[in-house]
Amino acid sequence: MTRAQLFVNIRRKKSFLCIGLDTDINQLPKGIKRTPEGVLAFNKKIIDATHSLCVAYKPNVAFYESLGSKGWQVLEQTVLYIKDNFPDIFTIADAKRGDIGNTANLYARAFFDQMNFDSLTVAPYMGEDSVRAFLGFKNKWVVLLALTSNKGADDFQLQELKNKEKLFQNVLRVSQRWGTKDNMMFVVGATRPKLIAEIRKLVPEHFLLVPGIGAQGGSLKEVAKFGMNKHCGLLVNVSRSIIYAGNSDTFAKRANEEAAKLQMEMEGILIKENIF
Amino acid sequence: MTRAQLFVNIRRKKSFLCIGLDTDINQLPKGIKRTPEGVLAFNKKIIDATHSLCVAYKPNVAFYESLGSKGWQVLEQTVLYIKDNFPDIFTIADAKRGDIGNTANLYARAFFDQMNFDSLTVAPYMGEDSVRAFLGFKNKWVVLLALTSNKGADDFQLQELKNKEKLFQNVLRVSQRWGTKDNMMFVVGATRPKLIAEIRKLVPEHFLLVPGIGAQGGSLKEVAKFGMNKHCGLLVNVSRSIIYAGNSDTFAKRANEEAAKLQMEMEGILIKENIF
Repeated sequence: MTRAQLFVNIRRKKSFLCIGLDTDINQLPKGIKRTPEGVLAFNKKIIDATHSLCVAYKPNVAFYESLGSKGWQVLEQTVLYIKDNFPDIFTIADAKRGDIGNTANLYARAFFDQMNFDSLTVAPYMGEDSVRAFLGFKNKWVVLLALTSNKGADDFQLQELKNKEKLFQNVLRVSQRWGTKDNMMFVVGATRPKLIAEIRKLVPEHFLLVPGIGAQGGSLKEVAKFGMNKHCGLLVNVSRSIIYAGNSDTFAKRANEEAAKLQMEMEGILIKENIF
Repeated sequence: MTRAQLFVNIRRKKSFLCIGLDTDINQLPKGIKRTPEGVLAFNKKIIDATHSLCVAYKPNVAFYESLGSKGWQVLEQTVLYIKDNFPDIFTIADAKRGDIGNTANLYARAFFDQMNFDSLTVAPYMGEDSVRAFLGFKNKWVVLLALTSNKGADDFQLQELKNKEKLFQNVLRVSQRWGTKDNMMFVVGATRPKLIAEIRKLVPEHFLLVPGIGAQGGSLKEVAKFGMNKHCGLLVNVSRSIIYAGNSDTFAKRANEEAAKLQMEMEGILIKENIF
C-alpha cells in the first residue's frame, strides 16, 4: 500500500486506528475453543466487527509463534483473511526482526512474499544492512523501532550520545538515509508524549506507529497534539482494550463498541486538525 | 544445559564449534529435493555427519520462517532430532527477538517450551524488561547481541555515549545486572577481534557466541587469542563453509571434513591454552 492510499483510507474512515491482533490462546472468550483454530475464529470475528472503524491491523507475531507451526498457520490465514476481504486495510507484522543483510532478506521473503504483509516492524540495533534488506519491496514498509512504550526504553534508547543526541534520536536521523517517508515508519510509544514533539522535528512527514494507548497508559489526545501532521501521520495502535473488551459470546460486539469510541474520538481530532 | 555441562562437553569433544544450520532451500545440494522436507533431510544428514565435532547447533530462524508454517515445522523437527539423538548438544535459536515483557514471555514459550531450545538470541534495543522475560527458565540461556559481525554494527553499536562507553560496552555492562554468567551469553562478531579483548575485560567469565569466522572473514586464532578464558568461554559459529562445503551427494562427507579441520584447530588451541 502507498502512503497516498493510506491517507485516503484515513480520511474515508475518519480513523487512524490500528488494532493489535495480540490474540492470546489463554484469554479467548467463552464459546471459543482454546486451540489454534479457535484463535483464527476469534480473529475473524474481531476483524468482521471492527474493520470499518480502523485502517490497520497489527498482529504481534509472538502470540502466534508461541503456538508453534500451527500458530504460524493461523498468522498466515489471518493476514490472508484480511487481504481477501478488506484489501484497503494496512497490515503490520509486529515481529521486531533484525539480522545481517542476507538473513534479513529471508525475513522479508517470509513476511512480504509468503504472507503479503504490507509492513514489518524492525529493530535497529544491527544497523543499516539489517534494515535496508526490507526496503527494496514495492509498496512495502519498514516500521523501525525508535522509542518504544516499555520501561526498558530507558536503558539504551534514552542514553545520551557524545554528540548530545539520545540513541532514539540518532536512530531517527541516521535511518532517514536508508529509506524515505514512502517506505519507512517509526514506532514511537504513547507513554512519553512530550518526546513525540521532539520526534516530529526530526521526522516531520513520516508516519508514526504509536502503541501504548489504553492498557499501557498513554493518552490519544496528547499523542495527537504532539504527533499529528497535515497528512495525519499517525497510526495509533490499541490491542487488549479492544479485543478483550468482552469475554462472553458478545465479545465481538463489545470490541466493535470500544473501537467505535476510539474512532469517534479520532474523527473529532481529525476535524479539529482540518485533515479533511 | 548448565555452564558446567557445556564445559564438560567442550573438553570431551576438544571443540568449541557451533554449526549454524542456516539451511537455504535454494542452495540444497543435488539429490536433495528443494522442499521443506528436503531441508529437514539435509539438516539430519549434516547433524549425523558433524555432531561428534561440535558442541552446539544454531539454526537461524529466518531460514525456516521464509518457508512459512512448513518451515516452522522443519525447525521444530530439527531441534527435536538433535535433542532426541544427541542430548549433549547445546541448541541456540538464532531468532534475535526482543519485545515488551509480556510479549517476550510468549517468545520464551515458543522457543523454550514448544521447541525446547537451550538458548535464544535476543536484541537489546528495548532494554531490561525485553530481556528479563527469558531469564526465568531453568537451564535456559539468553544470548544477547552485543557487537555483531556485520558492517551495520558501526551505525549504533559503536556509537560513543556521553560517558565515553560505546553502546555495545554499555549493553555488556548494564545487562549484567539482569542475568549471570550461568544464564547469559553475548554475541560478539569475529570481524573485530581486537574489540574482543576489551569485551573480555567487561565480561571475563561469560560465554561469547562468535559468528563471522569463514565467509565473513574473521580468524579463529585471533578470536581465541583475545577471547578465550579458563573455561574456554567461546562458542565459535561457522555456517556456510561447513554446511555448503559440498554440493553433490558427498555433501555430508565434505561437511564432516570441514568441521573436522576446525575441530583439529580448536583442539590445538585448547591444548595450548591448557584447558584440559
